[in-house]
Amino acid sequence: MTYCVGILVREGLVMMADTRTNAGIDNVSRYRKLRVFGLGTDRLIIVASAGSLSTTQGAMHRMLEGIHNPETDNIDKWETVPSIYQAVLAVGRALRAARDANEGLEQGDEVNFNASLLVGGSVGGEPHRLFLVYPAGNAIECGQDTPYLQIGEAKYGKPILDRALRFDTTLDEAVKVGLISFDSTMRSNLAVGLPIDLIKVKQGSLVPSANLRIGSDDEYFRDLSERWSNALAHAREEIPNPPY
Amino acid sequence: MTYCVGILVREGLVMMADTRTNAGIDNVSRYRKLRVFGLGTDRLIIVASAGSLSTTQGAMHRMLEGIHNPETDNIDKWETVPSIYQAVLAVGRALRAARDANEGLEQGDEVNFNASLLVGGSVGGEPHRLFLVYPAGNAIECGQDTPYLQIGEAKYGKPILDRALRFDTTLDEAVKVGLISFDSTMRSNLAVGLPIDLIKVKQGSLVPSANLRIGSDDEYFRDLSERWSNALAHAREEIPNPPY
Repeated sequence: MTYCVGILVREGLVMMADTRTNAGIDNVSRYRKLRVFGLGTDRLIIVASAGSLSTTQGAMHRMLEGIHNPETDNIDKWETVPSIYQAVLAVGRALRAARDANEGLEQGDEVNFNASLLVGGSVGGEPHRLFLVYPAGNAIECGQDTPYLQIGEAKYGKPILDRALRFDTTLDEAVKVGLISFDSTMRSNLAVGLPIDLIKVKQGSLVPSANLRIGSDDEYFRDLSERWSNALAHAREEIPNPPY
Repeated sequence: MTYCVGILVREGLVMMADTRTNAGIDNVSRYRKLRVFGLGTDRLIIVASAGSLSTTQGAMHRMLEGIHNPETDNIDKWETVPSIYQAVLAVGRALRAARDANEGLEQGDEVNFNASLLVGGSVGGEPHRLFLVYPAGNAIECGQDTPYLQIGEAKYGKPILDRALRFDTTLDEAVKVGLISFDSTMRSNLAVGLPIDLIKVKQGSLVPSANLRIGSDDEYFRDLSERWSNALAHAREEIPNPPY
């Protein structure tokens, strides 16, 4: 399992992903699921992935080697796509092709080769945008009314995002809320685990203002987790007993 | 969708269920999903249901009319089963039979006739016990390490149960935590809604100490929901901004 969240507020974009993968509960590994393309160029494209590792890696390889665009007859790569939207369409085709190739190899076993992606960032001077790419290759864009998108083990961490995030939420607060969402998810599902990869970029910039890995030795995350736990316990105590 | 939770602590048993059913988002109705059998007799059997309404109603009818027990060759009913465990086995057979009958009628349409139950209570002088009956008719019992069971839309409301419930939690606190769990679920899934049916019974008693319906006009629940929301917002504010 995996948990990834992307948050797009007025001030900028945050993307986070855990690093635990498992093929059965007795086969747990660590893989980077948050990738950055175009650093130091005219673009910044951030991709988080959930689902079949074979399919997401296949899609990334296809994007690095270039994937045919049937509408323009061009070969699309991260470095050449003219907009973040075209990047989303291209990686959607790559994801679909990788899944179909895996399913073609697979004869009879009941393996699920689906994968989904979050794709955020900016190409050229356009504002940062955020998309969710479905296993079939189609995509939706994050809007201002619900300024986040999730993939993977989304439910445990969703209530805090619904309560706390608005488009006007500050970028710092968005990081904080995202980390609380990860904390809740990791408490309820063992298949989501530290470390968490995190990238934060301000609107109007192509250089991440934070790009780091948060491990079990991260003091801020440990403190956040403990404070949140204590605050919830305290909040429960403060509510009077039911009259029934 | 539906959300039901049963909590079994040292002091007693709480069972709660929402009342919203839907066959598609444009066909929403209200049905009682928490049923009580044996009130005023030597037994108290409380059943909460999630899943196909046709299957759960079919199972309840079978239990009222009596269902054959292949091991004893008796006809089992709520009034005659010798223990809560035998009640669980009997209703498991009834649930399986009702599902299989529905699937037999259904020719070709893709309808899911699965349903699950929570069954709690006591027959005779035995301590209250709590079980989850799966769609196939098999069951698991609630233990002291995780003193709750859920069916239906379980994930949104699970984190607070994991954090707050211990076997030593008081019965009042268990009701409070259960209501917070419902509040979180209803905020994230429209298909779970008020009113909530709630039954509370002390260990050693066959008479519920509370048996009521909590609607949108319930002052305690409104206050709990508001306090919880404010406390979460306050807890977030109290956590310092991230250093990254």
